[in-house]
Amino acid sequence: MRFDIITVLPDLLQSPFAHSILQRAQKKGIAEIHVHNLRDYSENKQKSVDDYPYGGGSGMVMQIAPFAACIEKLQSERNYDDVIYMTPDGVTLNQDIANSLSTLENVIILCGHYKGIDQRIRDIYVTREISIGDYVLSGGELPAAILVDAIIRLIPGVLSDETSALSDSFQDGLLDAPIYTRPVEWRGHKVPDILLSGHEAKITAWRHEQQLQRTKERRPDLLND
Amino acid sequence: MRFDIITVLPDLLQSPFAHSILQRAQKKGIAEIHVHNLRDYSENKQKSVDDYPYGGGSGMVMQIAPFAACIEKLQSERNYDDVIYMTPDGVTLNQDIANSLSTLENVIILCGHYKGIDQRIRDIYVTREISIGDYVLSGGELPAAILVDAIIRLIPGVLSDETSALSDSFQDGLLDAPIYTRPVEWRGHKVPDILLSGHEAKITAWRHEQQLQRTKERRPDLLND
Repeated sequence: MRFDIITVLPDLLQSPFAHSILQRAQKKGIAEIHVHNLRDYSENKQKSVDDYPYGGGSGMVMQIAPFAACIEKLQSERNYDDVIYMTPDGVTLNQDIANSLSTLENVIILCGHYKGIDQRIRDIYVTREISIGDYVLSGGELPAAILVDAIIRLIPGVLSDETSALSDSFQDGLLDAPIYTRPVEWRGHKVPDILLSGHEAKITAWRHEQQLQRTKERRPDLLND
Repeated sequence: MRFDIITVLPDLLQSPFAHSILQRAQKKGIAEIHVHNLRDYSENKQKSVDDYPYGGGSGMVMQIAPFAACIEKLQSERNYDDVIYMTPDGVTLNQDIANSLSTLENVIILCGHYKGIDQRIRDIYVTREISIGDYVLSGGELPAAILVDAIIRLIPGVLSDETSALSDSFQDGLLDAPIYTRPVEWRGHKVPDILLSGHEAKITAWRHEQQLQRTKERRPDLLND
């Protein structure tokens, strides 16, 4: 799968894509991540990409032309399944959406900054608007990294142990059961006996019970869906 | 405000904290972000911090001792308002929570990785568990960066134009109105006349109407809260 991310702050995305699973997926050739500097598509000498909002108000607005030039260049090179804009008023990302996006081949992701992007970019180019949650951030760069991370780990071959992603929180609509590792006792705090019993069926039943209980306590909304 | 982030991948967090508003807040002395390498607190030669889960199953579990050593060292140096664990089964972050966290002085943020952390760390040390959304990621590093970004931009003095954060999405329970900047017309797509009218009161009314309409269409749940 190929990701083309358009941003005014390409350097901000450098370290998140150079470590851990995102790095491994690229090395394995399973994912390609290309980060494009929006300023390279500015037509003026100052390489500016934003301007004051019509109608007044605080904050700067990102202009149409640089995004249009970058998107159209990319679209002339290959077909894209989606042009995604990261925005707090988009559809809220969840595991189902991540699952479905992980089957795509090529996506463009637009990162807003400042007050946001000219509405006409959204009207003309954007095919999907995604929010990572109901909070405001400095820009769309970290949300783009979150989206790429959520998607890439679902592509077959990326995680070394394929059952790992399937047993994650949300994949079966339930939160995870508590997990423990060595030592058995730490300052008087012990691992539940059942996990030391070696009785596989009982452990599976206990974990499922814990998942249900934790979901009921913390996220009853997930049980109603 | 001071953030101490404990992670097994400190380098992953390098570039997000070195740009834009997070960099500016640190330069102005309004925020301090300290990233601690969990491996420095491992007591074995291999600097390992994880082990197999009791009861079997896929994925590795992060052990108690290194987190305990790092948290206790920090807590011996100053008082912390909260020890936050980033986890998909935590309370879902929203703008209200970000607002309230922005009034704290010192927080520790634990990033999980692999399958998660030993439940006893959560039982003993963690005072608050936060999820950035209903999706699974490779680790708690990007969520920690998201949380820090959401909080820091709310601290007075960080944003150059203080009204900017107040007029963001969610702060008044509504999504933003569409925004436009130059040019007035782009390939036949025009800016709405009202925004060019110069009539401030009418523009304010139009924007509020657009906010209501967009929220009703996209996020009716926000209107019912």
